[in-house]
Amino acid sequence: MTLKYYHAEPAANSLKSMIPLIEKRLPYESIYVDLHKFEQHEPWFVAINPEGQVPVLDHDGVIITHTTVINEYLEDVFPDIPLRPRDPVGAARMRYWNKFCDEQVMNYVSIHGWHRMVGIIARSIEGGEFDRLMERIPLPDQRKKWRAARSGFNEADLANATEKIRYAVDKVEKQLGETEWIAGNAYTLADINFFSMCGMSVERMFPELEVGKRAPRLVEWREKMKARPAVKRALSGEDRTAPGLRTWTGEAR
Amino acid sequence: MTLKYYHAEPAANSLKSMIPLIEKRLPYESIYVDLHKFEQHEPWFVAINPEGQVPVLDHDGVIITHTTVINEYLEDVFPDIPLRPRDPVGAARMRYWNKFCDEQVMNYVSIHGWHRMVGIIARSIEGGEFDRLMERIPLPDQRKKWRAARSGFNEADLANATEKIRYAVDKVEKQLGETEWIAGNAYTLADINFFSMCGMSVERMFPELEVGKRAPRLVEWREKMKARPAVKRALSGEDRTAPGLRTWTGEAR
Repeated sequence: MTLKYYHAEPAANSLKSMIPLIEKRLPYESIYVDLHKFEQHEPWFVAINPEGQVPVLDHDGVIITHTTVINEYLEDVFPDIPLRPRDPVGAARMRYWNKFCDEQVMNYVSIHGWHRMVGIIARSIEGGEFDRLMERIPLPDQRKKWRAARSGFNEADLANATEKIRYAVDKVEKQLGETEWIAGNAYTLADINFFSMCGMSVERMFPELEVGKRAPRLVEWREKMKARPAVKRALSGEDRTAPGLRTWTGEAR
Repeated sequence: MTLKYYHAEPAANSLKSMIPLIEKRLPYESIYVDLHKFEQHEPWFVAINPEGQVPVLDHDGVIITHTTVINEYLEDVFPDIPLRPRDPVGAARMRYWNKFCDEQVMNYVSIHGWHRMVGIIARSIEGGEFDRLMERIPLPDQRKKWRAARSGFNEADLANATEKIRYAVDKVEKQLGETEWIAGNAYTLADINFFSMCGMSVERMFPELEVGKRAPRLVEWREKMKARPAVKRALSGEDRTAPGLRTWTGEAR
């Protein structure tokens, strides 16, 4: 059995399926895809994932993409150390939160990440070269996002995104007053999802939300997440992002 | 064992979890929630689903919301007539398409539906009454959507939504050239998802896309969907929408 995991820095989507691999003690070959060099749009990578996006799981030649799909797949194939509750109601609670993170959180943190980090990269590329790079991007939405990052996202979109994060922080804080983990009293993929996409970086990325004050339970939960050996190991993976460009993993604003 | 299904007209989200209930031959109590009378924001309904949205599944008192979550739950609890492939790779393919429909299709059809139908309803309400109704809506995003429907969505958002539907139609058409159903050679929740949110109404809602010409396989697949006894039975459910306001189910533009 061979598992290969194509990923970038241990943050956001790349982290989100790396933590389950480690939690479940699955040996995997780590293949770093350098987003700073646009390797995700190179022909060799697009041959693996036609959407040109990381991360990708290759399980004995079967390609699985999209982190929520990858994580459910890992539960289906390797159920021994479960990160999805085995009772259907628990699984539904977890999926409710995964859906919330995927649809109401991820994109909004991402807009700020792109605005602050990808924008700097995008603007550093000369016009002709930029257009050439854009042409290679398979997904039209990704092309639009790169162009928006180059010109800067508009203020209304950025403000709306911050508002969505505020809502998410309050919603998670409320939930953590009722249950120990996000989807109930067990640690699940929902915790890994929210941590990777938002929880690990929210205080640093959105200091104006004063997360420490408004969401003390979230901060406590985040420390509990960071103390998990699997999370520690995933986070200790190499970060090749230039320090000044780090959003999820560092200080960029 | 008691299943209750709270739903509106047999279209879009309300249809999406009704078809699986019927396909799986699960007896359920149908509870109609009249969106024209804003019953989904009434205290009795918000006590059931704090988000104030249909549909809702009540299984022996356990409340499950969000159609993709409901449909996975039904597979977990009632696996006898499967609509989710039993092999993990098949399930991953299905989830890939469910995610695509949920994130890249549903909202964009919805913008046009709201613009054409909900806008007419929203504008028919006197200002003070409208504000009072808005205050009862639990989700801030839904409040925004109602306000946008009242003033009319802007042209750029509508054009972008149409473009997303065009992309989805082409993507599904391509897939149906490779497999009999959307997620492979078996009928799954992915077919039910795309049919309910887009496939059943796309020609009528977006005649400018000339779906009959650009996507003949999609049209053939849609007829195959409509010929299924469970889909027929679901679609024959009562439609209380005023004929002039029908988008998914009728002719409104």
